Amino acid sequence: MVSVIKIGGSLAEDRSSLVRLCQKLVFLSKKHEVTIVPGGGGFADTVRYFYDKFRLSDDIAHKMAILAMDQYGLLLKDIMGEAILAYDLDDALQYKRGLSIILPSKIMFSLDPLEHSWNVTSDSISAFIASSLKAEKLILAKDVDGIFTSDPMKDSKAKIFKRISAKNLLKENMKSCIDGFLPRILIEKQLTCYVVSGKHPERIESVLEGRRDLYTEITPYPSRALL
Amino acid sequence: MVSVIKIGGSLAEDRSSLVRLCQKLVFLSKKHEVTIVPGGGGFADTVRYFYDKFRLSDDIAHKMAILAMDQYGLLLKDIMGEAILAYDLDDALQYKRGLSIILPSKIMFSLDPLEHSWNVTSDSISAFIASSLKAEKLILAKDVDGIFTSDPMKDSKAKIFKRISAKNLLKENMKSCIDGFLPRILIEKQLTCYVVSGKHPERIESVLEGRRDLYTEITPYPSRALL
Repeated sequence: MVSVIKIGGSLAEDRSSLVRLCQKLVFLSKKHEVTIVPGGGGFADTVRYFYDKFRLSDDIAHKMAILAMDQYGLLLKDIMGEAILAYDLDDALQYKRGLSIILPSKIMFSLDPLEHSWNVTSDSISAFIASSLKAEKLILAKDVDGIFTSDPMKDSKAKIFKRISAKNLLKENMKSCIDGFLPRILIEKQLTCYVVSGKHPERIESVLEGRRDLYTEITPYPSRALL
Repeated sequence: MVSVIKIGGSLAEDRSSLVRLCQKLVFLSKKHEVTIVPGGGGFADTVRYFYDKFRLSDDIAHKMAILAMDQYGLLLKDIMGEAILAYDLDDALQYKRGLSIILPSKIMFSLDPLEHSWNVTSDSISAFIASSLKAEKLILAKDVDGIFTSDPMKDSKAKIFKRISAKNLLKENMKSCIDGFLPRILIEKQLTCYVVSGKHPERIESVLEGRRDLYTEITPYPSRALL
């Protein structure tokens, strides 16, 4: 079964670390079925800048932000070389034995399955795609180690969750590195999600191979939070 | 006959002036057949930032920059309200009696008619589209009054050309506000182009109605430069 890996846009802030991650993903794609979904990153930040400046509608900004994901997907393709661009779900299914990068605009503009707001980012979009591909795992590669009890940049006592349920994330209305809509879609689609640092690509390998490591598992079913 | 108006991305730096331009274009579309092509602006600047940072290939950057034009086109649509989005040349021809905004990615990705370099920007792309639509005029609305003998920001003696031939622009290798490839495509397609300030929308009306005003006409045939 395929696993969907979303590469967070903020990982593009550090060139060498993103290149290292991409190389590792090319390597991992030889032994695992993986499909890449791009984040929005600096491209989506530009959209947000103009959204604020021109007080754009959420409908238009949603489309512009999805094009930002296409742009970042093209950037990732340039780094990964042999990866194949997938423009729809059939492409992605066809290429899943190789390494494919999904450019989501065609899928999202035609199916338009999610609400149009900044609560829905590439996290939720990658969850929708993972569910459509009946993926085994959704892996969100970010520039943080996982989901914490509080902001680790501000609170030295912050602890990482090894496991937390999507319901818990909704209930606590926790400020975290994932978008506000994601827990709902994980529950609805009964999808397990892993939040892991893209700066430590070996942890992504651990997730794919079911090994314990430093990351957070978000369960779609009720479960006790585990620190 | 339709006229193609490219709205330069740098005009988005001043919100109120871009909104005023858009309102004028909605008004002008009631009496003239006009089709809008978006520039790239801040969206293309972000592409260029990542192009430099990741030393991306020109092929990939070309595609990313065309998506930047789609993003700016969506922004313009949000301001113009009643404008219709055109995704291909047939759409644009069909809507030319109303006001349409062309999102160029579908056209450019399928036809791929221009070289992939930063010499080709939305100037050349709008010339290609104008030629494909057999447009009467190509109007480039920019944040400058026209093409000058030297940089008017640095040289107080700089004079604006009322008229200059595309061949002259090529020969002199003049640094100007248009992209390096544009003169060639104007000659090849025998297309007349007007460079005009989008901050003075009444000048665009003058071009459409064939009145003398402050702007530069670029002729596709040899002609004596006129100051």
